[in-house]
Amino acid sequence: MVVQKYGGTSVGSVERIQAVAKRIKGYVENGDDVVVVASAMSGVTDSLIGLAQQMTPQPADRELDMLLATGEQTSCALLAMALHGIGLDAISLNGSQVGIRTDPFHSKAKILQIDGKRIRAELRRGKVVVVTGFQGTTALNDISTLGRGGSDLSAVAIAAALKADVCEIFTDVDGIYTADPRVVPDAGKLDVIDFDEILELAARGAKVMHSRSIEVAKKYNIPLHVRSSFSDKEGTIIMSTRSSIEEPVVRGIALTEKEVKITIADVPDKPGMAAMMFDELSRVNANIDMIVQNVSHDRHTDISFTVEKGDLRKAYDTAKDVAKRIGARDVLCDEDIAKVSIVGIGMRSHSGVASTCFSVLAKNKINIEMISTSEISISCVIKKQYGKDALKALHAAFGLDRKKRG
Amino acid sequence: MVVQKYGGTSVGSVERIQAVAKRIKGYVENGDDVVVVASAMSGVTDSLIGLAQQMTPQPADRELDMLLATGEQTSCALLAMALHGIGLDAISLNGSQVGIRTDPFHSKAKILQIDGKRIRAELRRGKVVVVTGFQGTTALNDISTLGRGGSDLSAVAIAAALKADVCEIFTDVDGIYTADPRVVPDAGKLDVIDFDEILELAARGAKVMHSRSIEVAKKYNIPLHVRSSFSDKEGTIIMSTRSSIEEPVVRGIALTEKEVKITIADVPDKPGMAAMMFDELSRVNANIDMIVQNVSHDRHTDISFTVEKGDLRKAYDTAKDVAKRIGARDVLCDEDIAKVSIVGIGMRSHSGVASTCFSVLAKNKINIEMISTSEISISCVIKKQYGKDALKALHAAFGLDRKKRG
Repeated sequence: MVVQKYGGTSVGSVERIQAVAKRIKGYVENGDDVVVVASAMSGVTDSLIGLAQQMTPQPADRELDMLLATGEQTSCALLAMALHGIGLDAISLNGSQVGIRTDPFHSKAKILQIDGKRIRAELRRGKVVVVTGFQGTTALNDISTLGRGGSDLSAVAIAAALKADVCEIFTDVDGIYTADPRVVPDAGKLDVIDFDEILELAARGAKVMHSRSIEVAKKYNIPLHVRSSFSDKEGTIIMSTRSSIEEPVVRGIALTEKEVKITIADVPDKPGMAAMMFDELSRVNANIDMIVQNVSHDRHTDISFTVEKGDLRKAYDTAKDVAKRIGARDVLCDEDIAKVSIVGIGMRSHSGVASTCFSVLAKNKINIEMISTSEISISCVIKKQYGKDALKALHAAFGLDRKKRG
Repeated sequence: MVVQKYGGTSVGSVERIQAVAKRIKGYVENGDDVVVVASAMSGVTDSLIGLAQQMTPQPADRELDMLLATGEQTSCALLAMALHGIGLDAISLNGSQVGIRTDPFHSKAKILQIDGKRIRAELRRGKVVVVTGFQGTTALNDISTLGRGGSDLSAVAIAAALKADVCEIFTDVDGIYTADPRVVPDAGKLDVIDFDEILELAARGAKVMHSRSIEVAKKYNIPLHVRSSFSDKEGTIIMSTRSSIEEPVVRGIALTEKEVKITIADVPDKPGMAAMMFDELSRVNANIDMIVQNVSHDRHTDISFTVEKGDLRKAYDTAKDVAKRIGARDVLCDEDIAKVSIVGIGMRSHSGVASTCFSVLAKNKINIEMISTSEISISCVIKKQYGKDALKALHAAFGLDRKKRG
């Protein structure tokens, strides 16, 4: 049994939907049970949001979910018709019909439970089952949507509920790369990557799958196959690689320029200062990433953290406010930063990765402003202008360039 | 409590939806509990059908229902947002959420039952409840649509389930007229019309509400108020007028040019011939209207009936077939006809309506080809070219012209 997810560009036109139908036919002829999860046709969700905002500047989440859910229902009904058109038996099911039960937090709902009964019954009748991605229903039978990456999440959760053999994520790229190929032309497509590695890459700013879906796939150990709906080439399989005897040290490198560094200068070096600061920041929902506190000097210390640009205003205001209360001298803000991160499970058993990283940057005369490490990753904040050079130099130094890997 | 239904043109644009929201606000400020039933924005249903036909020439009804239902869900979510935008509490509910249970006949489902619980609960919370018209769900929780006139039917059925005081049908005309005002400039808007009269007018081809909805309203005795969403003028109230002491003899006159006359010539005059003919015709779902059988001559008789133009082919073929089997001489077909009908409950107690009708036509040198009468109507088939003149002459003769009524 295979669960396939097709994103918005994959079902973005009449022709694309028909191409997807043909692809599905190949699986059915191969004897597979196929469950398809589809997103809204590309552009539809945005135009619905545009309509909503003409109604009221801040549409209520419950009604927005009711509205946006029509996008997937449309593409799924059309895909079922396209499957009929080429002689396959198919049925479309929305979140309520499948029984995708979520919590009541509209626009960012979490899946609580999936009732696989209806899907299994339709599969037994020999049907391809086409399920609306991105949505479920609350205990009240109200429509809820799952937020960013929601359709991927629907697919993975359904695959878990049905104990599918694999969940294929069809998209407009042909897999996951060792680094962004637009920046590193020698970046290579990965055949396999571990759940933990891709989670770390996603967290470090690589534009890969949303981490919610990967976490669910990891929890239920469902292999994900990220591949292109525009070709038949194999993509990248995300799975548990724990059993492999030998790991490459570094699997991929991520670069993000979307963060800002905030420094609270001269914080009195007393217990509880950092706690107070980050407690307040979490209260305003600021998405904090790296946190670094330097050694104290003169009974004062500096605390720095990075935050997504969209959260800068509230994070800065909050930090200002708390700084005043705790007697810190000032709050400084630096938008001119990039963050480069190297990720690989192999790091755990290989010493020297950090020192190689630092010396590569030094050799390229790139100053490191902040460092943060996890078990399987190292991140460095540097000046924005050096971001791409750092990415390329590290990619080469860790043997990820295609010519070297081959 | 009032149930209001807004058709596709009434919610056909952002501006129209906002105008509807303002109108609803007036009712809420007046202390009314308001349940709103909305159609899809005009044009949306047709464009969805167009998309579906690009997928497969004959889309399956179940999937078409899944697809088309998104139209009402969209307009209802937008209307709820527009209501929020002007400070009203509102919630949109689809067929599944309301609990509009239908039979499993997709695209032409019949409502079996409406669970008023959710609507009542939301009204108690002080909300305007916006319900998707035209749709319900089957026992399997599949989406079903109600076919032609479906949104009117949803509104009337909800009004009946909630025992509403009135069901207002907002449309792009300002009420029901004594005759089509495009043909009879002196036609006047009716203030009141009886359920039976409008059912008869609808059956005789007047472009008024679909008879399904009127039948339900009559059964549960829910007054319907047909009025314009583009003005504040009162429209026409459809209700039981049985209690009125005095009735006008004729309430309105209908003209249709959409029917064709088929004559089976020289049918052997034996029992069971007509039964066999119309049994076969009903088996192919031909929509038969008037049936007339002349007196027999020479042990043979002629049977004529009218049928909607769209059903001509199947009706003609079936009639040919049966005619051969029963030994009738020929089947003739006449497309050059119009049918004019006068309708009024007052006819029951007034003699002479038929003779007035026939003599008005005679005075205008219009030959009558078929006559059929019911308790409250008289219909005459005439040559198509005389249809409009007949309508005008009868309208004046029965005192319906505005100058006379005033």
